[in-house]
Amino acid sequence: MKIGFLGLGIMGCGMARNLMKAGHEVTVWNRTAAKCTAFAKEGARVGATPREVVAANEVTFAMLADPAAARAVCLGPDGAAAGAAAGHDYVDVSTVDAATAQAVAAAVTATGARFLEAPVSGTKKPAEDGTLIFLTGGDAALYEKVGPLLDVMGKKRVFLGAVGQGARMKLVVNMIMGTMITALGEGIALASKSGLEGAALLDVLAAGAMACPMFAGKGPGILADSFPTAFPLKHQQKDLRLAVALGDELHQPLAVAAAVNEAYKRAIAMGLADADMSAVARAVRG
Amino acid sequence: MKIGFLGLGIMGCGMARNLMKAGHEVTVWNRTAAKCTAFAKEGARVGATPREVVAANEVTFAMLADPAAARAVCLGPDGAAAGAAAGHDYVDVSTVDAATAQAVAAAVTATGARFLEAPVSGTKKPAEDGTLIFLTGGDAALYEKVGPLLDVMGKKRVFLGAVGQGARMKLVVNMIMGTMITALGEGIALASKSGLEGAALLDVLAAGAMACPMFAGKGPGILADSFPTAFPLKHQQKDLRLAVALGDELHQPLAVAAAVNEAYKRAIAMGLADADMSAVARAVRG
Amino acid sequence: MKIGFLGLGIMGCGMARNLMKAGHEVTVWNRTAAKCTAFAKEGARVGATPREVVAANEVTFAMLADPAAARAVCLGPDGAAAGAAAGHDYVDVSTVDAATAQAVAAAVTATGARFLEAPVSGTKKPAEDGTLIFLTGGDAALYEKVGPLLDVMGKKRVFLGAVGQGARMKLVVNMIMGTMITALGEGIALASKSGLEGAALLDVLAAGAMACPMFAGKGPGILADSFPTAFPLKHQQKDLRLAVALGDELHQPLAVAAAVNEAYKRAIAMGLADADMSAVARAVRG
Amino acid sequence: MKIGFLGLGIMGCGMARNLMKAGHEVTVWNRTAAKCTAFAKEGARVGATPREVVAANEVTFAMLADPAAARAVCLGPDGAAAGAAAGHDYVDVSTVDAATAQAVAAAVTATGARFLEAPVSGTKKPAEDGTLIFLTGGDAALYEKVGPLLDVMGKKRVFLGAVGQGARMKLVVNMIMGTMITALGEGIALASKSGLEGAALLDVLAAGAMACPMFAGKGPGILADSFPTAFPLKHQQKDLRLAVALGDELHQPLAVAAAVNEAYKRAIAMGLADADMSAVARAVRG
Repeated sequence: MKIGFLGLGIMGCGMARNLMKAGHEVTVWNRTAAKCTAFAKEGARVGATPREVVAANEVTFAMLADPAAARAVCLGPDGAAAGAAAGHDYVDVSTVDAATAQAVAAAVTATGARFLEAPVSGTKKPAEDGTLIFLTGGDAALYEKVGPLLDVMGKKRVFLGAVGQGARMKLVVNMIMGTMITALGEGIALASKSGLEGAALLDVLAAGAMACPMFAGKGPGILADSFPTAFPLKHQQKDLRLAVALGDELHQPLAVAAAVNEAYKRAIAMGLADADMSAVARAVRG
Repeated sequence: MKIGFLGLGIMGCGMARNLMKAGHEVTVWNRTAAKCTAFAKEGARVGATPREVVAANEVTFAMLADPAAARAVCLGPDGAAAGAAAGHDYVDVSTVDAATAQAVAAAVTATGARFLEAPVSGTKKPAEDGTLIFLTGGDAALYEKVGPLLDVMGKKRVFLGAVGQGARMKLVVNMIMGTMITALGEGIALASKSGLEGAALLDVLAAGAMACPMFAGKGPGILADSFPTAFPLKHQQKDLRLAVALGDELHQPLAVAAAVNEAYKRAIAMGLADADMSAVARAVRG
Repeated sequence: MKIGFLGLGIMGCGMARNLMKAGHEVTVWNRTAAKCTAFAKEGARVGATPREVVAANEVTFAMLADPAAARAVCLGPDGAAAGAAAGHDYVDVSTVDAATAQAVAAAVTATGARFLEAPVSGTKKPAEDGTLIFLTGGDAALYEKVGPLLDVMGKKRVFLGAVGQGARMKLVVNMIMGTMITALGEGIALASKSGLEGAALLDVLAAGAMACPMFAGKGPGILADSFPTAFPLKHQQKDLRLAVALGDELHQPLAVAAAVNEAYKRAIAMGLADADMSAVARAVRG
Repeated sequence: MKIGFLGLGIMGCGMARNLMKAGHEVTVWNRTAAKCTAFAKEGARVGATPREVVAANEVTFAMLADPAAARAVCLGPDGAAAGAAAGHDYVDVSTVDAATAQAVAAAVTATGARFLEAPVSGTKKPAEDGTLIFLTGGDAALYEKVGPLLDVMGKKRVFLGAVGQGARMKLVVNMIMGTMITALGEGIALASKSGLEGAALLDVLAAGAMACPMFAGKGPGILADSFPTAFPLKHQQKDLRLAVALGDELHQPLAVAAAVNEAYKRAIAMGLADADMSAVARAVRG
């Protein structure tokens, strides 16, 4: 299939390569054109603008850094929507808020093209390994059509309804993630003050009902007070804030997530905004 | 080996049977003697008192319901300590607080016998399947000696230092457990208010870094608002209370666990004390 | 002085009347013109549009219901800013967020007129009695000029710096208010569960270091589980939400206010949005 | 009246002197006898033991430092209970937990004497000025009899029922106090991060519905980051912990007080245990 791919950041590189490896004809575009060179050597075409890429391909994926970038790449005069028309499909796999997803969707569908939001759960390694999780919302027929492409890039995909539901699911998942890593941080702190080895705690957790890849992956770093950034703490805090705000909007009290959010705010006040999200453990330890 | 086993409740039955299956000569005792009959038919000897059991065996395990029972079985005139002497070993696998563990330890070691606390993580099924986790403290040499016996009953064992450390580790683990299940409850509540299927959330969690046996096991019950009791909510709340109190004693703030404890108190106020600990999700949902 | 007054709601009526009683020549305007009739009988002039009122008076006050109304009355083609020019002063005493205050300020000052935000602390009775508290920000010289007018309507005024600081101070004050009333609610609930009379608690509080008009005023209603609305609970929750968000923006953790906000959300989920803000006590009681 | 007074600490000195000034014949006793000398010069008799003081007086008051002292002074062989008999009255004005009050009550009433617990709200200055608040429980007839004596030492007294209710009321009051001072701390922190003067906030609070002696008294110290000890922070934290525990016992969730308790624990972890309870503001500021 002829596929466009907008955005060659850490995530986009891995994803676009996996589409190429699967035999698709991929046209790439990136704000900083230099990043496209390596892809051209590997056989990709290079587009001049998002508009051109969308116009020239059957399906275009966009993996942008944040809501502002997702809007800019889609909405400008050379933007993706300007190149869209009936018969074209646009799949935004960036992580954005529901309002941004809806704004992009409106611009795209107004042209007659179809739209799917598909934010991912997973970071660099899963993007390279093709083990991402796609949380999608929007056009159900488009979801069915691009399913095989998503399966090339990920190990799991779910369709959640209208545009915005993918973004909301991601908030819920990250809210649970923030609480879990803070729970681990409090547990390690209490164990340590009790004279128990943190490693023994991780060992016990790994053997029981709470064993999970995140504890195995992040636990040793917490014990070593070392937090190399996989998911920046400030982004985790932003997701907690937005999740609590979503609860505000829907009248759902979230007393525990709100307490976790405050722990993250304390971590930011301590200068840990750019550390890994697991650095909340240092703030919790006190 | 000649082994005594005191306490044939839900947990004790499974554990004693596993020792018998492994070929050990087991003498059982239970407060309600009727429970011993089945074991006698399976080839176990039956002791008249804890004192007699301890005096007649090289190693005696005790699996009692709570701290009061653990003290009563060990400390009375016909109690375990009265039968102990140098050359005898006593391993208390009951879940008790550190102070009770220390009181029992003092009574046993005063006779010249050795003591190990070894509270377990795991409930009925793991007891039957021999997949418990032992959190031990006390006599290190005794830990080495009974290691093979613990391995018959469990899949994991750790030695944590002085008597009381096993009890403390269990509090830490259960504190993390309480926070995690409450995080899941808040996540399901927020998803539901957002118009997302709870099943989709569980599905997404199962595919990612937070996948754990507890979410898989308890999640569907939360969606169905059904909480058949594996671990009573009131016991989970007690452990949260004790963990927060341990933090109080050690000057370790635990803001998130404290918020979780209040959610559990709300669940108890709603009449859920005897439901499964996952019923906190109903209190959280509001 | 020739004074304009825009907005004759519950608050505006009391304030405009106090200006008239003090001998000023007042021109009123209200979205629903009928409200102006009574004022005309008392000697006020009636303006046709905010634009006309501002153009015809030296100082114009605006007391609007919410940020949307404050913007609408100022920014439209017949709005206040359209009538403003150098030599005219505009004082917005509505309670709005900092962004709205800044938008209105920008529109007014762009004409050469001066602007002061002056949101009030206090409700209907203080507005009638002339005992409001003004939290002002913007043009310092204008603050000095209208000081005597504010003193006619209030008992206290402070100048806090740039436009937006008045709005922020109001959030801080209302955040403290929300926590205090929730503290009283928790205290009454704990006293009651302990078999203590709530009235005795109020009595003791009234005699000590925590004695305050709010406890005296709201306490009996909490005991009677009766919450006639002076300040709607949903508005108090909104202010808590905004205060916590301000903390988010400024990296100031607010663990207690965040917990209070969740209690208010629970109250709203229980159907208490339009009750008095003290109805949080019912949510807290559980 | 012939009155005994046990305990001449900071509080007891002021209280005993007020009884003497009112014309009563007072016999004092103190663990460290030296403190009695000054009282002897002012006309007081000096007792050799609590037993002797109780035996020789119609009513004896005890103002001891903590539960251990309250028990020691009452229960030993030379203790107050040993000197008690029908016709004697014992009023314990120490601050103790309900269990201690009940133990002392049982020992006293077993002799035929009457007992009243009457812990006070107020510190050194109110003790000297005779403006304490008495929170009493126990013998209602005794409460009536000693009312005039309590009025000499205090400005307010309430009778709350059985022994233990005075202690519980004090916990409730101190729980509210802890939340209020933390609310002020959070408010000052948020104001400060917003670029608002803390003094302006105190000024605004002083003019409104939340004006209270505590804010007026403690606010300036918080602004100056200076916390001369009137009520030690560690004692306030202990009361919060006990209040939350009382809520645990009675199944009353106290989410806000629990969050406040954690803030106090953080303050202790920061080394502020012996500072004034208002130093929680430093922990909250982060």
